[in-house]
Amino acid sequence: MTAYAALTGHFSRIAAMSNAIGILQWDSDTMMPRGAAGSRADSLALLRVLAHDMAVDPRVGDWLGAAEQEDGLGDWERANLREIRRVWTVETALPADLVEASSKAISASEMAWRQARADADFPALLPYLAEVLKLQREAGAAKGATLGLSVYDALLNDYEPGGSAARIDALFDDLAAFLPGFAEEAIAAQQRRPAPVPMEGPFPVEAQRRLGMRVMAALGYDFERGRLDISTHPFCGGADNDVRITTRYDEADFGKALMGVIHETGHALYEQGRPAAYMGQPVGQARGMSLHESQSLIMEMQACRSPEFLAFAAPLMRETFGGSGPGWEAEALWRRYTRVERGFIRVDADEVTYPAHVILRYRLEKALIADEMPLAELPAAWNAGMQELLGITPPNDRLGCLQDIHWPSGGWGYFPTYTLGAMTAAQLFDAACRAEPDVLPGIARGDFAPLVGWLRTHVHAQGSRYATDELLTRATGRPLDAGVFKAHLARRYLGAA
Amino acid sequence: MTAYAALTGHFSRIAAMSNAIGILQWDSDTMMPRGAAGSRADSLALLRVLAHDMAVDPRVGDWLGAAEQEDGLGDWERANLREIRRVWTVETALPADLVEASSKAISASEMAWRQARADADFPALLPYLAEVLKLQREAGAAKGATLGLSVYDALLNDYEPGGSAARIDALFDDLAAFLPGFAEEAIAAQQRRPAPVPMEGPFPVEAQRRLGMRVMAALGYDFERGRLDISTHPFCGGADNDVRITTRYDEADFGKALMGVIHETGHALYEQGRPAAYMGQPVGQARGMSLHESQSLIMEMQACRSPEFLAFAAPLMRETFGGSGPGWEAEALWRRYTRVERGFIRVDADEVTYPAHVILRYRLEKALIADEMPLAELPAAWNAGMQELLGITPPNDRLGCLQDIHWPSGGWGYFPTYTLGAMTAAQLFDAACRAEPDVLPGIARGDFAPLVGWLRTHVHAQGSRYATDELLTRATGRPLDAGVFKAHLARRYLGAA
Repeated sequence: MTAYAALTGHFSRIAAMSNAIGILQWDSDTMMPRGAAGSRADSLALLRVLAHDMAVDPRVGDWLGAAEQEDGLGDWERANLREIRRVWTVETALPADLVEASSKAISASEMAWRQARADADFPALLPYLAEVLKLQREAGAAKGATLGLSVYDALLNDYEPGGSAARIDALFDDLAAFLPGFAEEAIAAQQRRPAPVPMEGPFPVEAQRRLGMRVMAALGYDFERGRLDISTHPFCGGADNDVRITTRYDEADFGKALMGVIHETGHALYEQGRPAAYMGQPVGQARGMSLHESQSLIMEMQACRSPEFLAFAAPLMRETFGGSGPGWEAEALWRRYTRVERGFIRVDADEVTYPAHVILRYRLEKALIADEMPLAELPAAWNAGMQELLGITPPNDRLGCLQDIHWPSGGWGYFPTYTLGAMTAAQLFDAACRAEPDVLPGIARGDFAPLVGWLRTHVHAQGSRYATDELLTRATGRPLDAGVFKAHLARRYLGAA
Repeated sequence: MTAYAALTGHFSRIAAMSNAIGILQWDSDTMMPRGAAGSRADSLALLRVLAHDMAVDPRVGDWLGAAEQEDGLGDWERANLREIRRVWTVETALPADLVEASSKAISASEMAWRQARADADFPALLPYLAEVLKLQREAGAAKGATLGLSVYDALLNDYEPGGSAARIDALFDDLAAFLPGFAEEAIAAQQRRPAPVPMEGPFPVEAQRRLGMRVMAALGYDFERGRLDISTHPFCGGADNDVRITTRYDEADFGKALMGVIHETGHALYEQGRPAAYMGQPVGQARGMSLHESQSLIMEMQACRSPEFLAFAAPLMRETFGGSGPGWEAEALWRRYTRVERGFIRVDADEVTYPAHVILRYRLEKALIADEMPLAELPAAWNAGMQELLGITPPNDRLGCLQDIHWPSGGWGYFPTYTLGAMTAAQLFDAACRAEPDVLPGIARGDFAPLVGWLRTHVHAQGSRYATDELLTRATGRPLDAGVFKAHLARRYLGAA
């Protein structure tokens, strides 16, 4: 057996373990009865330790050295070796005791966060969050030393391989200068139009589910390799060949679940479209979180908040819920689903104000990781940033710096990928529409094949073959910039040509 | 750390792995989309190999030797050491290559069986089944050599620790002499009464599910540590603290799902009632399959086909399905659920004819394991046995020797536990009714606490502390015999006092 074959066999076993963990995690969030939480935590902890042990197996280093000398490997195999070396380097950079300490600190801090958020009590979270932050700094330093990156960039690279704060600073400064004024204009333009008509519910869960599945099918989701279920926090998870999404239903407003289902379906299409021959290999994985978020936002924001989609969806909605009257016309629905409103909560934000929430978090986490600001000052700095970027100040920390789980759960360096994803979505969707003139007419007919076919070819089936920038350049002719995103917003919200 | 503590820590990890496997297996049978079957098989195979590696860890032998010398261990700890030595001895008796060969032969044979059963084509299964049988003989010989047991008894011991063919022969010969004549009498008595009134369906799945959950709650099932779902073949599975049961619904006949739910709830009550302090330890496991089956049959056959239960259930059924008329009276329902009929299929059989199905399989598998009969002669021997024990001959092998998955899937030595379970159920239920006079009056009120309380104390909470015979003697005053079971049948089907 060649060293390359030994490596791929080993990584197939790691994939089999990851798939087991993925399904158990899905089960924890959708099916598991409450009394099983303790036993489940034990099972997941055991499997994660075993997966980590497999990932840092010293034989991987030997196989890599030998395989990199092998003749006759093709482009994909070479790219797979590059990705294997990358993930192995990152995994082995972390000392085992830091992995364990971090895992324990995160468990404690997530628990403290749930209570602190409910009580709007930041000081109660502070010591737990400080411990997580300290260990994140250590982890970033350990990985950064190995990879030759700053501490923040090393953390960011877990979610966005090849990403850097220098690059993000430039993109975000551009947006931060543009958005506050733009949001004001968009809201002013909106106020000159009539307010949306309230829709008469309730909208039964079973009917919402039927509509969601019908739209998933139209988008090209493969139900032979996935499911739709319910969870408190919607997500896309599961395993290779078993990509499961979730939503939550509000009987007073079917739009929330529908747009949520479309968003998660975008993630799922990426996962289901990864290259079958490399499904369990590092080169077969999705490229990074900004590209992943771009796939969900292409569906939710670019495609399905378009007038074309609502022309297709309006009759389906009327048929599903027996709706009639002016509020159920495509034009009224489009106004409803493109409404701009300044609010405190990131996950409820529209696409115009969302980047402000992200830029705020990105600036704060960078300062905290660099120790340029005491953690105790986070609430004040948060509120000042909200005032600066959105012109509003949260009345308490539950609606402020306690709203997200990312920091308490060790996800430092994750936030910027949301807005990188929104910009990437605009740039990719624009390129798809130019390359395939039938993309928007197709959507108006409920035929997503022209769009998804283009995404399959240029994104999904590429796995991690190329770096993000190279993939984007091959697909759109240039690396990421904010230009197309800004043009998209201007066209949609100000009616600019 | 003491050797005993090291052992229990190790077995807790094995339990965490078993729990992961249990949930993934449950998911495969209830939730998994078809396209995930291949990836899931890889994940389960990996986890099973890892679980086996943990079970045969050579440190276990060292820890056992040291722990058995430790002072200060209580009765439960000593019993745990005895069980750990037992399972470790069995696991290590099998050479690793035999485990692997057996696993592959079983996969191939299960696949061949599905097709062969559909086609009623035994010759198509023959070579696959022969391979499984050969490897089962080898496994039985390896374990038998270590345990000092015959090949058949060694296989039986996987399901029924301490069981032996000599003991089963005596019990089954007794029953085989009694049952054919008894079934004839019962059917004759039944024919003198009016035939059951057909019930007017359909009975919607959602209503059946509500009724099932209401009865589960009455039986004492803990929904905080389990779930009810749907699968093709009903089962009780899942994990410690997460005991999940399944059923299947027939909209033409709600009784099938209801009795199935009650049966699986009996299994689940045993699992949920195991000693909390030893949940993940060998001594905390259920004692064996005959006792397990006794718990399901106490609920399904002893308690819930009684006139008392149907007096409680009849109004619930009428209320759930809006039923009315003579067919919905408790007496008519009781006649319906205690109907005796000779049929070809084991899983559809009533409690009078069921033992004949089991005795047939037991005699055949014993002869096949001992190589006293060529496997090619199985269909003819099967049909002859059906004629002798039940007076009917299957028209083809789909309704004959191809109906069950047990043999193709390597479950040799399992069948007798069904009928041992039926006899054990009768003996335990009789003892419970004598010890707790409120058992039957309670059931008539829908209050199962007197019955379940007695079972908790005498069976569930004992885990594997005692050998089966000792447990039964402590609970009922004597080891298992067929007497109470025969008396139960006579009382119910012939109205004997």
